[in-house]
Amino acid sequence: MTGPTPSIAIDARWVERLVMELAAFGAYADTGAWRPVYTPEWVAAAHCFEGWCKEAGLAVHGDAVGNIWGRLEGRNEGASIVSGSHLDTQCPGGRYDGALGAIAALVAIKALKDQFGQPRRTLEVLALCEEEGSRFATAGFWGSRAIIGKIAPSDPETTIGRAGETMADAMRAVGLDPARIPEARRTDIDTFVELHIEQGPILEQAGLPVAIVDAITGMRHTEYVLTGVANHAGAFPMDLRNDPMAGFAEIASGVINTAHRLGRPAVTTVGRVAVEPNAPAIIPRAVTFTVDARHPDSAKRAVLYELHEELISEVAARRGLTVESRILFDHAPCLSDLGLLETLKRVAAEQSISTMVMASGAGHDTQQIAAVAKRVAMIFVRSKDGRSHTPEEFSTLEDMVAGIKVLAAGLYALAYG
Amino acid sequence: MTGPTPSIAIDARWVERLVMELAAFGAYADTGAWRPVYTPEWVAAAHCFEGWCKEAGLAVHGDAVGNIWGRLEGRNEGASIVSGSHLDTQCPGGRYDGALGAIAALVAIKALKDQFGQPRRTLEVLALCEEEGSRFATAGFWGSRAIIGKIAPSDPETTIGRAGETMADAMRAVGLDPARIPEARRTDIDTFVELHIEQGPILEQAGLPVAIVDAITGMRHTEYVLTGVANHAGAFPMDLRNDPMAGFAEIASGVINTAHRLGRPAVTTVGRVAVEPNAPAIIPRAVTFTVDARHPDSAKRAVLYELHEELISEVAARRGLTVESRILFDHAPCLSDLGLLETLKRVAAEQSISTMVMASGAGHDTQQIAAVAKRVAMIFVRSKDGRSHTPEEFSTLEDMVAGIKVLAAGLYALAYG
Repeated sequence: MTGPTPSIAIDARWVERLVMELAAFGAYADTGAWRPVYTPEWVAAAHCFEGWCKEAGLAVHGDAVGNIWGRLEGRNEGASIVSGSHLDTQCPGGRYDGALGAIAALVAIKALKDQFGQPRRTLEVLALCEEEGSRFATAGFWGSRAIIGKIAPSDPETTIGRAGETMADAMRAVGLDPARIPEARRTDIDTFVELHIEQGPILEQAGLPVAIVDAITGMRHTEYVLTGVANHAGAFPMDLRNDPMAGFAEIASGVINTAHRLGRPAVTTVGRVAVEPNAPAIIPRAVTFTVDARHPDSAKRAVLYELHEELISEVAARRGLTVESRILFDHAPCLSDLGLLETLKRVAAEQSISTMVMASGAGHDTQQIAAVAKRVAMIFVRSKDGRSHTPEEFSTLEDMVAGIKVLAAGLYALAYG
Repeated sequence: MTGPTPSIAIDARWVERLVMELAAFGAYADTGAWRPVYTPEWVAAAHCFEGWCKEAGLAVHGDAVGNIWGRLEGRNEGASIVSGSHLDTQCPGGRYDGALGAIAALVAIKALKDQFGQPRRTLEVLALCEEEGSRFATAGFWGSRAIIGKIAPSDPETTIGRAGETMADAMRAVGLDPARIPEARRTDIDTFVELHIEQGPILEQAGLPVAIVDAITGMRHTEYVLTGVANHAGAFPMDLRNDPMAGFAEIASGVINTAHRLGRPAVTTVGRVAVEPNAPAIIPRAVTFTVDARHPDSAKRAVLYELHEELISEVAARRGLTVESRILFDHAPCLSDLGLLETLKRVAAEQSISTMVMASGAGHDTQQIAAVAKRVAMIFVRSKDGRSHTPEEFSTLEDMVAGIKVLAAGLYALAYG
């Protein structure tokens, strides 16, 4: 990469039009979108996105799971520089989560093509079919998992949707053959850069439009079942109870305080609780709950989990409760390439866009594609009030354009420099 | 009341037979009973109990809600000395909760009749139709409420069962006319003494078979809704959250510790919790929970509630949460008559039965009948492991006989002395 990047013009009106037109597919309430994978709304959105890529002069194809690729061939042979994100949404979600990253890749690569002609290295736009797990709870990252070859042959039949349908049937209904999923595999991705809304309030609090992401956090979901002895809420003295609610309350307070005390970016959330029998006048028999705990630094993540386990064991033992636990999943942190990080920081400054470096607390397709790409990184755009996964999510056009400018300059440095 | 009570013989084999025969109606699992009001099992049990009262030589009648009264006329006119409890059970319940009190009254009054002839004052056995609210959640104390005139004319149509049926239809299905409920009212009860299993572990821990109950605790059920802001569990830093789960955990710990620290017989239970949206990776928007808090001493009960409210307000304010609350019900404590307490303690000693005095942490029909009776008291029989509302509840025949002996001696003192 040689010399500073030239100034790159981004067509703000086109960005706004693409965001609004894509949001119309599955429009929900005033500002939301409800577009889970392989629904008619999703098919229409994918078809529309494909058309935009063609209009932009890219070589377009849909792969075996419905990911859309728009290719701008480079002069040199070699693995591609890819950018994109997912087209599906939560139910309901907003206009920006996922969609903005696919639009950003298209707008950036079109701008480079128009302003600088054919690149040295091949650039590709990627609109991933599925990331949220909003229709098939266990299908999260379906699109990026297909690309890295991480879908098992049995998955299409065993992945069941909210209405009981199989993934295989949902694919066939939109003209995709589940048997051909392995054809979606790619082994020629050099670099993947994903632009996404932040989904948190850190940029807003810092007064900055864009962040360069140095890591996607490591996370673990664990389910605990704390069991005591159900008894009559009136007749059983406090000092003789084995009350799992008392134990749960101490544990929930404790794990939340532990993450808080460790400081950013450690986070721990107790989001799901089920009480048995769940009656006002019965001391519960059991409380089942989840702990979601995240840290992008592997060593500190291990400390966080150890502190949680110690606390839970201590409380359970002291209160005469049994505790069973089950790790629902455990994702290691995904680190951005250090050289790529430096490039993105440099080109952002060259484009006069103020940025900060932060970790992503949410999971993203990037962490999957990292399995086959030589290097990955992400760019975050400021989210109003840090909201996401809701029709209320919002980013200003100015911030989106700033993010896309950083992306375009980064792709320029990689593919033209 | 003059002189010590004579020794009273209780037929242990008859007690055992009645307990086992009644338990056969709605028998559940090996040792349980499932006999909610106005079901075929309940009808059969009530019919059987009626037959036993007739065989015992009592004048029997079923009232307008299906309570069964067995009367042993006294030589003198005047209000009755009544003993009994309820025939219905939890779903499932055990053999002893309720049933034992009805059987005890019958066995005691039969023993007095056989051993001492006609009493000076009228004695009555009462088998109440409903206490548990196990079929109609809002019908609790249906039998005793009919006796004190606390059933509104609209109640039979607005009281809805687990399967959506009205109380009025359930009554008609067993030959009772809801319009005649007011006829069940009684204004001629001088004394009501209810024998019941303890439902807690205090007698077992004290190594005693029988307790004299000096008060039925006062209790309040309050439902709280603690509302914060739902956000992404990964992207939202700990220090910026308004997490109602963190607030709930602190509150549940706090109210439980407060009751514990106040000491017996204060009890506070958090038995029901609902989280919204209840997903592992979403900081909850709201946590709804119940607080069941009880104390038999009115002044201390007020202190307990004040401490709870202060804590809840403080936590909510400090954590930026809103809190709404709704009192589901509030029952004042029901105090036993002091003279009657002294009589029961004295006659127990005369029958060589060791007793202690304790409060009831559970609600009982006695607290309803106290509205019309001149005086009330209760007798508790030791519960194995303090269990109740489960097929596992168990009291030994020896303890049951000891309790019935105290009841019989008490009734002797009141009606023959």
